[in-house]
Amino acid sequence: MKTADVTAATSPAPHSLKLKPNAKPRVLAGHPWVFANEVENLLPPEHDGSVVECRDRQGRFLGTGIYNSKSQIVWRRLSRERIELDAAYLRAAIERAIARRASVGKRPDVRAETPCRRLVWSESDDLPGVVVDQFGGTLVLQVQTLAMEQRSTLISDSLDALLSPDEIIFRNDAPIRRLEGLPLEVRTRSGRPWEPRWVKVDGLDYWLDLQGGQKTGFYLDQRAQHGRVAAYCAGKRVLDAFCNQGAFALHAARAGASKVLGLDSAEDAVAAARRNATQNRLNAEFGVANVFDWFNAPGRAAEPLWDVIILDPPPFAKSKSALEGALRGYKEINLRAMQRLAPGGVLATYTCSHHMHDAELRGVLAEAATDAKRKVRVLEHCHQPADHPVLVTMPESEYLRGYILSVE
Amino acid sequence: MKTADVTAATSPAPHSLKLKPNAKPRVLAGHPWVFANEVENLLPPEHDGSVVECRDRQGRFLGTGIYNSKSQIVWRRLSRERIELDAAYLRAAIERAIARRASVGKRPDVRAETPCRRLVWSESDDLPGVVVDQFGGTLVLQVQTLAMEQRSTLISDSLDALLSPDEIIFRNDAPIRRLEGLPLEVRTRSGRPWEPRWVKVDGLDYWLDLQGGQKTGFYLDQRAQHGRVAAYCAGKRVLDAFCNQGAFALHAARAGASKVLGLDSAEDAVAAARRNATQNRLNAEFGVANVFDWFNAPGRAAEPLWDVIILDPPPFAKSKSALEGALRGYKEINLRAMQRLAPGGVLATYTCSHHMHDAELRGVLAEAATDAKRKVRVLEHCHQPADHPVLVTMPESEYLRGYILSVE
Repeated sequence: MKTADVTAATSPAPHSLKLKPNAKPRVLAGHPWVFANEVENLLPPEHDGSVVECRDRQGRFLGTGIYNSKSQIVWRRLSRERIELDAAYLRAAIERAIARRASVGKRPDVRAETPCRRLVWSESDDLPGVVVDQFGGTLVLQVQTLAMEQRSTLISDSLDALLSPDEIIFRNDAPIRRLEGLPLEVRTRSGRPWEPRWVKVDGLDYWLDLQGGQKTGFYLDQRAQHGRVAAYCAGKRVLDAFCNQGAFALHAARAGASKVLGLDSAEDAVAAARRNATQNRLNAEFGVANVFDWFNAPGRAAEPLWDVIILDPPPFAKSKSALEGALRGYKEINLRAMQRLAPGGVLATYTCSHHMHDAELRGVLAEAATDAKRKVRVLEHCHQPADHPVLVTMPESEYLRGYILSVE
Repeated sequence: MKTADVTAATSPAPHSLKLKPNAKPRVLAGHPWVFANEVENLLPPEHDGSVVECRDRQGRFLGTGIYNSKSQIVWRRLSRERIELDAAYLRAAIERAIARRASVGKRPDVRAETPCRRLVWSESDDLPGVVVDQFGGTLVLQVQTLAMEQRSTLISDSLDALLSPDEIIFRNDAPIRRLEGLPLEVRTRSGRPWEPRWVKVDGLDYWLDLQGGQKTGFYLDQRAQHGRVAAYCAGKRVLDAFCNQGAFALHAARAGASKVLGLDSAEDAVAAARRNATQNRLNAEFGVANVFDWFNAPGRAAEPLWDVIILDPPPFAKSKSALEGALRGYKEINLRAMQRLAPGGVLATYTCSHHMHDAELRGVLAEAATDAKRKVRVLEHCHQPADHPVLVTMPESEYLRGYILSVE
């Protein structure tokens, strides 16, 4: 029929994925991802990085998303509407992300006025695989999906137009890029190397190497917690058991702790923490140690107890299958910390693994409290800050949880 | 043997309960309760209200607690040590509870300087069954265990000595007292009736009838949330769907909302809310309505959308068996609210049932977001305030949870 032919020629049906029958894909429960084994058909590789629709078994439209046949996550929803992933979309999404950070300024635990913050966070900001951190005039851009990699210049152009940064570092060396078939590389927009320097975050100077350092600089997600915990530290003996470059320890020292000890298993982290302490003229000791071994060392039990202990370890559970072992690890460190706390001491304990939900963390803490025979009360529930927004239909978007506890 | 006889006469073995074999009582996981079906032996009724020990199957000491054979919860732990429940214990526990509230003053969401607060909260404050709320010079004392009822005068004497209140109201009419075999009664310490009056809480006047009213006055547990939610309300259209005496609605109006509507199914609540609005010279409308019916009324869909909706319902799940139906109810109201919110609107949603944990609440919200086809981000995680402390080994001590959400 002629009319139909004309329609087809002028407005070709977009390419689409169709869900398998009988599967219970999480996308039907609002999740933004579709896995390769959840769809009937894969599209040819020339569509990798392009925008395609997804439809349910009955052919109902589920949304527009980015496609990559090389990834297990073949489709990531951009919108429940039909949209193009063009310069206008990218710029509007970045503008919304910035506006979102501005509007949370009213929260007491987010300091939107300081120039260090996460500006864009992946699915939570409608830009799957795009992460932007701001350190003053420097933006650190991570791109972790093929579709966004193909539009990387459009993204950095938008960031430039909206924020006029001095420099944008393309920090594309996270191993997760390999899952999308992307190479690992780090470069700057200007082509000039970014020299390591002192950067002030929440009133303290940190020596940051945003281009060459092993990590992307500084964990912006715990900034509010540094201050919360410091409020308990005046005049106290404080142990920061996984100190990294020393942020919790330095804030405790600044708040007037009588003694501060930071431990980390990485020598470069301890060296950085010491350098930061010296620069800020703060009294804090740091040592290289495996925290599990340290707690169990002979003679430890005879040492004075601590008033405040901070446990902010790296993610023990990097996969769901590793969760059981991870729970044992979390329980062990929390038990040892409770045992080494003076009566009425404060334990600030965190997990940054999205596999570990609140129920698991609470279970670990209850077991540790029982074994330690201590009465443990919640002083504060701790969560991701608002510049790392959680989507209620995407559990993976929530990875950081914690408690500040009173241990009697 | 003579020596043993002498010992027995001067220091009789305390009465003790012994756990059954094979049972997995929660007390072994740090919980402070033992149920009647978890022990081998019950003690004669003359021990009801007295302090007894509990031991595990191997005879190991688990702690000292209060006993009541008339209650399903036959034993509630007071301490992991051997202690007496005398005037000194009661006074020290109340002193610790007061000190605990003072030390949380550093938290931004607790205003320890205002005279309205929960002062003592049961197991969380080492006084199982004792709840004390302070409204300025008036203390409201609830006693809900037999042992504490027998020591009620000692408790009120300690409160008097420590705080010199103008009056103590014994508000002992909660039906939960029947589970301990206690009568229901309300009286004042002075014997004079407590006249209803205006009481200022967080800057607003509320007409409170602490002695004769149906409830114990005012829900102190949501005070911080009133301010948090109000921060989103300036210039906005605000619906407070379970308004009670109007606290959320009044704070929204004070913050400059362009329109405020409060709904409640109870006529006396709506009358109180209207009276409070008038007294505080605030513009807020209130109406009697069943919220489920109200959302589904013909013509509702044609009305203007709301910018902020608050859902702070009474506990739908009063028992574990009622949880499934309750989840349907929570999902229904959250779905309706999301549908009636303008793009980018704010939903403040709470549950005050301890049977509903974070996982269940999150499940409800994810389902509602999916059905409403809205992208829902967490703006704030909401919890009990620090004057209602949560024990990590007692899930029942945590009953209040919520989220402030952005609904796009």
